[in-house]
Amino acid sequence: MQPVPHQLMGYDRAITMFSPDGRLLQVEYAKKTVKQGTTAVGMICKDGVVIVADKRIIDKLMVPESIEKIYQIDEHIAVTVSGLVSDGRVLIERAQLKAQQHRVSFDGAVDIIEVVKDVSDLKQLCTQSGGLRPFGVSLMIAGIDNEGPKLYVTEPSGIYFGFKATAMGEGDSEILEVLNKEYKETMKIDEAISLAVKSLKKVLDANFNSDRVDAVYLTTEEKKFRKVDKNKIKELLK
Amino acid sequence: MQPVPHQLMGYDRAITMFSPDGRLLQVEYAKKTVKQGTTAVGMICKDGVVIVADKRIIDKLMVPESIEKIYQIDEHIAVTVSGLVSDGRVLIERAQLKAQQHRVSFDGAVDIIEVVKDVSDLKQLCTQSGGLRPFGVSLMIAGIDNEGPKLYVTEPSGIYFGFKATAMGEGDSEILEVLNKEYKETMKIDEAISLAVKSLKKVLDANFNSDRVDAVYLTTEEKKFRKVDKNKIKELLK
Amino acid sequence: MQPVPHQLMGYDRAITMFSPDGRLLQVEYAKKTVKQGTTAVGMICKDGVVIVADKRIIDKLMVPESIEKIYQIDEHIAVTVSGLVSDGRVLIERAQLKAQQHRVSFDGAVDIIEVVKDVSDLKQLCTQSGGLRPFGVSLMIAGIDNEGPKLYVTEPSGIYFGFKATAMGEGDSEILEVLNKEYKETMKIDEAISLAVKSLKKVLDANFNSDRVDAVYLTTEEKKFRKVDKNKIKELLK
Amino acid sequence: MQPVPHQLMGYDRAITMFSPDGRLLQVEYAKKTVKQGTTAVGMICKDGVVIVADKRIIDKLMVPESIEKIYQIDEHIAVTVSGLVSDGRVLIERAQLKAQQHRVSFDGAVDIIEVVKDVSDLKQLCTQSGGLRPFGVSLMIAGIDNEGPKLYVTEPSGIYFGFKATAMGEGDSEILEVLNKEYKETMKIDEAISLAVKSLKKVLDANFNSDRVDAVYLTTEEKKFRKVDKNKIKELLK
Amino acid sequence: MQPVPHQLMGYDRAITMFSPDGRLLQVEYAKKTVKQGTTAVGMICKDGVVIVADKRIIDKLMVPESIEKIYQIDEHIAVTVSGLVSDGRVLIERAQLKAQQHRVSFDGAVDIIEVVKDVSDLKQLCTQSGGLRPFGVSLMIAGIDNEGPKLYVTEPSGIYFGFKATAMGEGDSEILEVLNKEYKETMKIDEAISLAVKSLKKVLDANFNSDRVDAVYLTTEEKKFRKVDKNKIKELLK
Amino acid sequence: MQPVPHQLMGYDRAITMFSPDGRLLQVEYAKKTVKQGTTAVGMICKDGVVIVADKRIIDKLMVPESIEKIYQIDEHIAVTVSGLVSDGRVLIERAQLKAQQHRVSFDGAVDIIEVVKDVSDLKQLCTQSGGLRPFGVSLMIAGIDNEGPKLYVTEPSGIYFGFKATAMGEGDSEILEVLNKEYKETMKIDEAISLAVKSLKKVLDANFNSDRVDAVYLTTEEKKFRKVDKNKIKELLK
Amino acid sequence: MQPVPHQLMGYDRAITMFSPDGRLLQVEYAKKTVKQGTTAVGMICKDGVVIVADKRIIDKLMVPESIEKIYQIDEHIAVTVSGLVSDGRVLIERAQLKAQQHRVSFDGAVDIIEVVKDVSDLKQLCTQSGGLRPFGVSLMIAGIDNEGPKLYVTEPSGIYFGFKATAMGEGDSEILEVLNKEYKETMKIDEAISLAVKSLKKVLDANFNSDRVDAVYLTTEEKKFRKVDKNKIKELLK
Repeated sequence: MQPVPHQLMGYDRAITMFSPDGRLLQVEYAKKTVKQGTTAVGMICKDGVVIVADKRIIDKLMVPESIEKIYQIDEHIAVTVSGLVSDGRVLIERAQLKAQQHRVSFDGAVDIIEVVKDVSDLKQLCTQSGGLRPFGVSLMIAGIDNEGPKLYVTEPSGIYFGFKATAMGEGDSEILEVLNKEYKETMKIDEAISLAVKSLKKVLDANFNSDRVDAVYLTTEEKKFRKVDKNKIKELLK
Repeated sequence: MQPVPHQLMGYDRAITMFSPDGRLLQVEYAKKTVKQGTTAVGMICKDGVVIVADKRIIDKLMVPESIEKIYQIDEHIAVTVSGLVSDGRVLIERAQLKAQQHRVSFDGAVDIIEVVKDVSDLKQLCTQSGGLRPFGVSLMIAGIDNEGPKLYVTEPSGIYFGFKATAMGEGDSEILEVLNKEYKETMKIDEAISLAVKSLKKVLDANFNSDRVDAVYLTTEEKKFRKVDKNKIKELLK
Repeated sequence: MQPVPHQLMGYDRAITMFSPDGRLLQVEYAKKTVKQGTTAVGMICKDGVVIVADKRIIDKLMVPESIEKIYQIDEHIAVTVSGLVSDGRVLIERAQLKAQQHRVSFDGAVDIIEVVKDVSDLKQLCTQSGGLRPFGVSLMIAGIDNEGPKLYVTEPSGIYFGFKATAMGEGDSEILEVLNKEYKETMKIDEAISLAVKSLKKVLDANFNSDRVDAVYLTTEEKKFRKVDKNKIKELLK
Repeated sequence: MQPVPHQLMGYDRAITMFSPDGRLLQVEYAKKTVKQGTTAVGMICKDGVVIVADKRIIDKLMVPESIEKIYQIDEHIAVTVSGLVSDGRVLIERAQLKAQQHRVSFDGAVDIIEVVKDVSDLKQLCTQSGGLRPFGVSLMIAGIDNEGPKLYVTEPSGIYFGFKATAMGEGDSEILEVLNKEYKETMKIDEAISLAVKSLKKVLDANFNSDRVDAVYLTTEEKKFRKVDKNKIKELLK
Repeated sequence: MQPVPHQLMGYDRAITMFSPDGRLLQVEYAKKTVKQGTTAVGMICKDGVVIVADKRIIDKLMVPESIEKIYQIDEHIAVTVSGLVSDGRVLIERAQLKAQQHRVSFDGAVDIIEVVKDVSDLKQLCTQSGGLRPFGVSLMIAGIDNEGPKLYVTEPSGIYFGFKATAMGEGDSEILEVLNKEYKETMKIDEAISLAVKSLKKVLDANFNSDRVDAVYLTTEEKKFRKVDKNKIKELLK
Repeated sequence: MQPVPHQLMGYDRAITMFSPDGRLLQVEYAKKTVKQGTTAVGMICKDGVVIVADKRIIDKLMVPESIEKIYQIDEHIAVTVSGLVSDGRVLIERAQLKAQQHRVSFDGAVDIIEVVKDVSDLKQLCTQSGGLRPFGVSLMIAGIDNEGPKLYVTEPSGIYFGFKATAMGEGDSEILEVLNKEYKETMKIDEAISLAVKSLKKVLDANFNSDRVDAVYLTTEEKKFRKVDKNKIKELLK
Repeated sequence: MQPVPHQLMGYDRAITMFSPDGRLLQVEYAKKTVKQGTTAVGMICKDGVVIVADKRIIDKLMVPESIEKIYQIDEHIAVTVSGLVSDGRVLIERAQLKAQQHRVSFDGAVDIIEVVKDVSDLKQLCTQSGGLRPFGVSLMIAGIDNEGPKLYVTEPSGIYFGFKATAMGEGDSEILEVLNKEYKETMKIDEAISLAVKSLKKVLDANFNSDRVDAVYLTTEEKKFRKVDKNKIKELLK
């Protein structure tokens, strides 16, 4: 743990205050929670979008579905989280509700960006209002809407960015290096999953194996949340 | 008691704030309350699900029902708690109401996961909003719904997991070791109860005896909360 | 007064926070208030239930009814308190209202457990919400309902237990020792009152005398709050 | 001023918190305010009830009525205060309103105990809720209702007691000693006033004289608030 | 400035808390504000009531009316303030509204005591509720109602007293000494104004002169707010 | 910066509390903000009223209107501020709304004093209620209403005064000296502007020049907000 | 980081309080956040208005639109931010809503100043109310309305100014020097973009290149938000 410089002591204890050098320490600490969270990789491909996530915990006493890391927001949107899982669940349930309300009101699928903005607005609010702490979680949101495949990450501060390919959580910098070298926009879903799994293997510890991998893809054509088969992942890891 | 490192002093006093290394200390302390709570073991079996709990207190002046540790949420759902019993009761009453409202609105039994999510949402809220402390209790929720037998544990942070078999409270790690070795999905209810009672006996102190055990099962066929007979437990402990 | 270990300083000043070892210090301090409160003994008997309480103060200038320690919640329920009397009064008035509302809504006597739960819910709330302190009082609630005689104690944390026989307040441990040895479920009301008065005499200081005793019983048959005659107590103390 | 023991420092600054030994220090400090307040004596007599109070301040520039210490709540109820006079006024105005509302709703005089409970409930609330301090005042309430003459004192904690005779404020212990020796339930109003005035004279400082005395009585027969004539008091003090 | 004894440090910073010796320090500090405020003298006379106040500031660039110190609440009520003038204005506007509402509702002039009580209730509230500070101002309220001439002072605590003659603000004790010697209830308005002006001259500093004096009277017969002519005051000061 | 005496430390951090010597430090600090603010001079003349203000900032990249310092509240009222400009804007917008509402409700121009009182009431509130800081700004409000030309200054405390001539902001004391010597009530608008500009030139630093001056006048006859021509000011400064 | 002088310690931790020298430290810290933010330059030209902003981040894995720095408020208004991007987004969404509501209510384009004032009012509020921190962001708002081209910057304090040309964020002082020398009101849009890009190149670090530049213009004639072509910028940077 990096010690807090003496001059900053106290500024990180008051909710939503600036430190003398203009930082919001609570938001920075929340980002550390994310950095220690489980790893996820996302990529936009020629024919869709993929998310591959590490479950980290492999407990044979757990029900497998209970430790899946990639959730469905709507049939055309997938999401995974790094950081506080319970914080993430609150935001995912909010996003699911938002998507569902959109279907009821407009009889169609919500644009991905709408969901991203809604989640990010709530995150920002929690960095500015007293009596609330920032959300300690980043969300990677992927989906297909009328404009094609989309991939976003929203951070604890409420900032979000759109990516062609990205990573978050433990070891994200190392994976980003891999992606910077090897990711191509012309990749197909299969190639992207393969690259993601390999980069996770490279970065994560020795205990990493196919049981820890959760992978989801959506094709531009079908626009549907699909789980990648366990055997396929096992094969990729050989 | 493990001392708080000097660098962390103060972070654990402000409600729902992050420490500089990205931890929520109040949530971690609440987990310690759970770790010191009474022990419970749960298992999904071939023919249903069981919960076996230690009452810890054996006071011959108490009314026996008053110290039962396993409660009924609905006729198809059982629950036990580790940690602050009074906190647990608030959550159990909420779950009972939720199940009852579902019966009124939909004329059927609520899915176990619905109850689990509702309890967990409230727990998460208490880790993020000022003026509230986290719930100092874990709940083990077991039941049978249309998808078959279910077993969940929800923690003070608002995280929950589904299990085939698990333990919580005092000595949970030792019991998990036993379960990892001896639990099989093909076990029948009787075998599971026997395994649970034996693991409790192994882990808990010398004063442990059949009077301290509370055990409940639900068969997949009947879907009903059933108490295990005292004599049966006495027999198992011989 | 037991000093607070240095490591805990500060944790007991913030409302409803956990200490690093998972304790709620404000609740523990409230329990100390109870331990210093006036003593009460309760017993379920073959033919009903009794509460015997020490008034502690004997001031000949006070109006006798004004220092009675056992109150009526409804005609079939009695209650006494140990700890902050003014806190107790708030809870008793709430219980009286609850019982009265039940009579109006359901045209019948409320179950004792309903009253106990309602009081305990409010107590738990005051251990978790900011801006409120825990109630510094335990309530011993005794009564007869359709299931027969009942005896409960609810603590500052919001925990409650059902008892066959119990004690609370100053010297409760010594009285529990007596009860553990001498209490029998087959005792009749008269015998129970006699045992209670004797145990109070044994435990309390030299100034204890019949004037300090307040005693109430309810028979299973009649289900009515009845004061024990002063002369009877005087006789028992000889 | 009695110093706060080092171990208690801090506990008396947070609103409505318990100290480690189970005390509510703010309430104890409020009681000190009362102990330093003006003195009052009350007695139930054979033929009614009396209150005699010391005005302490004798300022010939003040309008005499302005420094009267005994107020009328309703025609059958009198009240005096020790402690913060402005706090007392708030409670008296509340009591006056309560009595008046009772007259409007039930077309009759309110029972004294109803007024006492209402005032005490508000006092208790101010010892438990954040953002409020305890009332720094005791009220001595005397009156005649259908059950005959009544005399109550409600303390800052919200506790109240019924008395045959009592005193409050500066020197209350010394006056209670006098009352314990000399008060008799068979006294008539005249005798009681005489005893009260003499006990005040004995206890208070050399400057005490008839001008400082405020005295009120209500006869059981008439049930009306009556001021005692100045000359009568002057005579009693000779 | 009188230093705070070490034992009291901290008690005066928390809103509306008692110090260990039963004092409300914030209220005591507010009284100091009053003691440093401008001086005012009031007297009930045989034929009415007068208020004479020092303006202290004499700035020839100010508009004279702007530094008048005696305000009209209603045509039959005058008021002056010592302490925080901006706090005083809030209370005066409240009193003016109260008087006006009375005229509308009852078609007549409000009793002086009604206005005094209303202002004092608000003052008391500000000494007991969190999030508010006490009013740092005393009000001297004089007027004529159906019971004749009245003169009241309400303090920061919410206490008020009725006076025949009194003073407040800087040097009030010295003026009270003068009044105690020289004031007579049989004085006429003219004599009272003369006594007030002379006592101000005696007590205040060398810069005191007729320009600093603001004086108002109301006759019992006319019941109307009347300013005393500047020249008259100049004459009195010779 | 004048250091805070040791005895006062802490009193200036708690919102709206009195220091032991009866001061409101937050209000005093807010006044320092005003003292460091831009300078303004106002004068009532024989034929109207004028305000002359220093813009301080002369940035040729700014749009000239953007750095004007004198604003219009209504066609007959002008205002300028010293201190926090953003605080001032909130109060000016409130005053503009008040004036506009008056036009709608009463079909006429609002009295200047109404606007002044409304602004001052809000300022006082911000010195007494928790969760708000005082406004760090003084407003100089000038206008013509049915009673003729008016000039007021309202301070951070909520105090206001009417002036014939006055100054506020940086160097106000030196300008007041000039005004005390040279201002005459018989001055015409032209002479007043000339005096104001010269006094600003005398007091402010070497960089002062005509570009920094903002000047407005209203004639008693026309009652309209009029800007003084830049060239006129340039001429006056020669 | 500039250390906080000892005398100021503590004043910057309490929300919205003044320091003894009359400063609002939280607002000053928020301004530091802005100073460290991305750089933007704006200029009013003979034929319209331009904003040129540095994106700082150039991540080939990001979707280009995702890192654009200049947003559209309405078809005739552009905005860019320096400081906390998530704070900026909240204000931009508010401005977009304001513009849209104006179109609905008045069937026309909103005046730029209306949007600027609305944003600034919210910013000021966040510097005065407890439980909120100041916005850590400056907004540069440019547009064309009926009065022609406009350019404003609103700061964290809620202050705003209109400019002919200005800069904000990292290195703003150096760019302002350039603008002071080279900006002319007679410049055409093309010349202004060229000057902006060159000044950014001069001031920002070696990694600056055309990919980091975002540029938008609106012509007085067309009144429409237009992006500057990437190639054009590349050309300008040669």
